[in-house]
Amino acid sequence: MFKNKTSIYSNIISKSFTNKTNTNLTTMTEINKSKNLNIKKFMPALNTRWSPRAFSDKPVNEEDLKILFEAARWAPSCFNEQPWSFIVGSRSSSPKAYDLIFDSLVVPNQLWAKTAPVLIVSLSKSNFAMTGQPNVHADYDVGQAVGFFILQADHLGLYSHQMGGFSPEIVIKNFNIPKDFKPISVMALGYIGELDRLPKDYASKEGLPRARKEQKSFVFGEKWGESRI
Amino acid sequence: MFKNKTSIYSNIISKSFTNKTNTNLTTMTEINKSKNLNIKKFMPALNTRWSPRAFSDKPVNEEDLKILFEAARWAPSCFNEQPWSFIVGSRSSSPKAYDLIFDSLVVPNQLWAKTAPVLIVSLSKSNFAMTGQPNVHADYDVGQAVGFFILQADHLGLYSHQMGGFSPEIVIKNFNIPKDFKPISVMALGYIGELDRLPKDYASKEGLPRARKEQKSFVFGEKWGESRI
Repeated sequence: MFKNKTSIYSNIISKSFTNKTNTNLTTMTEINKSKNLNIKKFMPALNTRWSPRAFSDKPVNEEDLKILFEAARWAPSCFNEQPWSFIVGSRSSSPKAYDLIFDSLVVPNQLWAKTAPVLIVSLSKSNFAMTGQPNVHADYDVGQAVGFFILQADHLGLYSHQMGGFSPEIVIKNFNIPKDFKPISVMALGYIGELDRLPKDYASKEGLPRARKEQKSFVFGEKWGESRI
Repeated sequence: MFKNKTSIYSNIISKSFTNKTNTNLTTMTEINKSKNLNIKKFMPALNTRWSPRAFSDKPVNEEDLKILFEAARWAPSCFNEQPWSFIVGSRSSSPKAYDLIFDSLVVPNQLWAKTAPVLIVSLSKSNFAMTGQPNVHADYDVGQAVGFFILQADHLGLYSHQMGGFSPEIVIKNFNIPKDFKPISVMALGYIGELDRLPKDYASKEGLPRARKEQKSFVFGEKWGESRI
């Protein structure tokens, strides 16, 4: 499935390879070469998933949306509480919800997110349904469900880009959210689009190499802060 | 890769199919039949991932551990903060860390988790590295990284089972964790094992049908609490 993903930015990305340094590697392929890991053992999405800003007009069909939420649904959670909820705004099938979500985004995100055909709010339920006691794992569990969602999105040839830059207060007001629920992030979802859909400042940054910390800085063994590998 | 996953419990699971009800469906296959979704569109892990309690003695090799943390590493995060850290206890390669993590588990978890060859603590960094300001997305982002980790585990034929039942205080003390970091969960990781490795009470529950809420209870559109689908 991942082979069908559009490579509109392949030129940009290829070009970035030629400038790569040890601290700014670009894709899993490169990473794996440097670490002598067997690339065949990686799930395909690790190589293809990234968070674009330019989305195409093509709508996300309803079956695919159901499949994405099915993926989220089957994530594990503490006491199987499933503390996640989602609000879906789709330009083609739930345009009013789309506008109400869009309204909550900070302006710098509105400038590019307007290209996306779907916007989705992720929310966590702060207290356990059974006991009413605080669920300290709620946000973590919602994150896992969204992790499942975005990897399934990749599997369908879709792209997602999550934003922290939105107003939870506006979401709460626009959708009359009960007190027990907390909006955590807004995701733009769709197919990848041409760079000319973006303002210039954004277009020039699109497809830049992805950067991450090295494993030795976050995977420890017996001694905190010391690499085990 | 997923086709190689052992089906020790296939009898139990097949049997459970014969008792299935609308509210207690067992696998993605069943779910999809009931919803007329195209099963070919699902990522394989959705059908094969679950959280066992009986693990085999077989160690997890170091290359696979590196691949799993590579999957976590490439998760997205707010401002690319990557607020995740992990402590790895492996019976075969970091046994002291294993014992220090095991020590933090509540007794009911120790009874089964002792069968797992690897225990891993997930931690979130509460404040942004750059500004020192609180990162409200930290736990959510760690959850996404762990979501990537456990789907990659499935891709390698490995199983994981996360636990909230442990003492963060004991982890903090045993590993001298800095104040800025919060232990969120402990994961048991390994290959699936025979039921006779578990105490009877646990063995009888292993492989029971997985249950989740229906999408209509957590996927909303314009009106909170009303299904969009």
